[in-house]
Amino acid sequence: MKKEEIIKQIRTKKSFLCVGLDTDISKIPKFLLSYDDPIFEFNKRIIDATKDLCVAYKPNIAFYESMGAKGWTSLEKTIKYIPKNIFTIADAKRGDIGNTAKKYAETFFSTYNFDSITVAPYMGDDSVTPFLEYSNKWTIILGLTSNKGSNSFQNLVLENGSKLYKEVLSVSSSWGNTDNTMFVVGATKAQDLKEIRKIIPNHFLLIPGIGVQGGDLEEVIKNGLNSDIGVLINSSRGIIYAGDDEKFAEKARLKAEIIQQQMAKYL
Amino acid sequence: MKKEEIIKQIRTKKSFLCVGLDTDISKIPKFLLSYDDPIFEFNKRIIDATKDLCVAYKPNIAFYESMGAKGWTSLEKTIKYIPKNIFTIADAKRGDIGNTAKKYAETFFSTYNFDSITVAPYMGDDSVTPFLEYSNKWTIILGLTSNKGSNSFQNLVLENGSKLYKEVLSVSSSWGNTDNTMFVVGATKAQDLKEIRKIIPNHFLLIPGIGVQGGDLEEVIKNGLNSDIGVLINSSRGIIYAGDDEKFAEKARLKAEIIQQQMAKYL
Repeated sequence: MKKEEIIKQIRTKKSFLCVGLDTDISKIPKFLLSYDDPIFEFNKRIIDATKDLCVAYKPNIAFYESMGAKGWTSLEKTIKYIPKNIFTIADAKRGDIGNTAKKYAETFFSTYNFDSITVAPYMGDDSVTPFLEYSNKWTIILGLTSNKGSNSFQNLVLENGSKLYKEVLSVSSSWGNTDNTMFVVGATKAQDLKEIRKIIPNHFLLIPGIGVQGGDLEEVIKNGLNSDIGVLINSSRGIIYAGDDEKFAEKARLKAEIIQQQMAKYL
Repeated sequence: MKKEEIIKQIRTKKSFLCVGLDTDISKIPKFLLSYDDPIFEFNKRIIDATKDLCVAYKPNIAFYESMGAKGWTSLEKTIKYIPKNIFTIADAKRGDIGNTAKKYAETFFSTYNFDSITVAPYMGDDSVTPFLEYSNKWTIILGLTSNKGSNSFQNLVLENGSKLYKEVLSVSSSWGNTDNTMFVVGATKAQDLKEIRKIIPNHFLLIPGIGVQGGDLEEVIKNGLNSDIGVLINSSRGIIYAGDDEKFAEKARLKAEIIQQQMAKYL
């Protein structure tokens, strides 16, 4: 998907919401377990209920992988079910040497036809460039994560006085361009967003952590938006697990609507 | 698998060779393509031909993933086929926030019953500790990688004068212990091995890069071994693609034997 199409979707729907499909067999409503493919059935209903309110879906690959081969089948059906004008993100955080990265790119861009994949940059340029070779596909590089453990290394100070994650943003933004690269930036660090925008003013940012992870939507909007809008804000558990009965999809829609309406104020 | 058992296998077989199962449908002998599951058929024959010469098998998950659901079925059959006294490594390089890391641990330790998995430490402690909660399983943390791109970030100098990868080794070695944690250390940096051994003298190291990636076996042995032996040396393409006809498995065995015999000199 081209950047212009993403921006058009955002302006049309007045939303830059991404719904995270962290679909966990132990958390979905029990009545779905009698279906042939409960994971897909859950996703299908969430998609039907939210597709006019969001511009992206982000399946978290770990949840599908943990189900073995049948999890990958549920994932495949899910991706095929998502309307073509909605951006798809494989939240896979892959990162490996060149010939292996090439295989991961093949998996998510060819075998499953995702629009984008999240990747870890720490193995360096040759671990990311194979993803950048696909046209109309996006590589979403981990810039700064929203978990507590992000302090272990990402905030280390280098001899030049810069923090490690800033060096990572600066260096890895040169591997591709603003038409094929986005960055994951943890929303709980909204105070850092201003500084991040100094390093990468024009890239799209994927911001997780609204809701369960505690980010502040208005803060993020104030510091993260650029002239292209330039942000996708993800919410997973806060939306998809809003209900645990037969009305779970309607309840998910209500949660998505609250976020979308806040976003609409800025568009 | 307990450490004592790994060491016993090494001493019995006079080998610390790990065979990397980077099984690529486009590189295996053509005659295998007529089989129902060519990937498994290839692995089965490689395992039969090398199992007395190596102490570990390391499937590179990217190669299975790229085949979709059927690739995961080939992987499952492969893992079940590997003799129980041989250490298995899921080369997956996963790394994500806590609740996702937990799912990845479940995938590789429960669903597929691997003995170990490679993980990326850069998202911090909470991205690794869920793997450490499994008893008799191993977490193999990326310490220093052997690819050219490792220079992008891993060798950055911190304000305390230490290189980033050394800080990573030092900090992440405190998350677990020498009975549940190993480190990936790129063999092409054999000159760095001495210094690495100062930081983590007692951990097992998984050393890739012998062969195609250009590492020097004797150099690695000289600088990497400890009183437990403490190293697993991986070779993938150099062994499994030694031949491309009906005798590919015998040819792979010959390549594995050359390495094993060099190792035997030190055991």
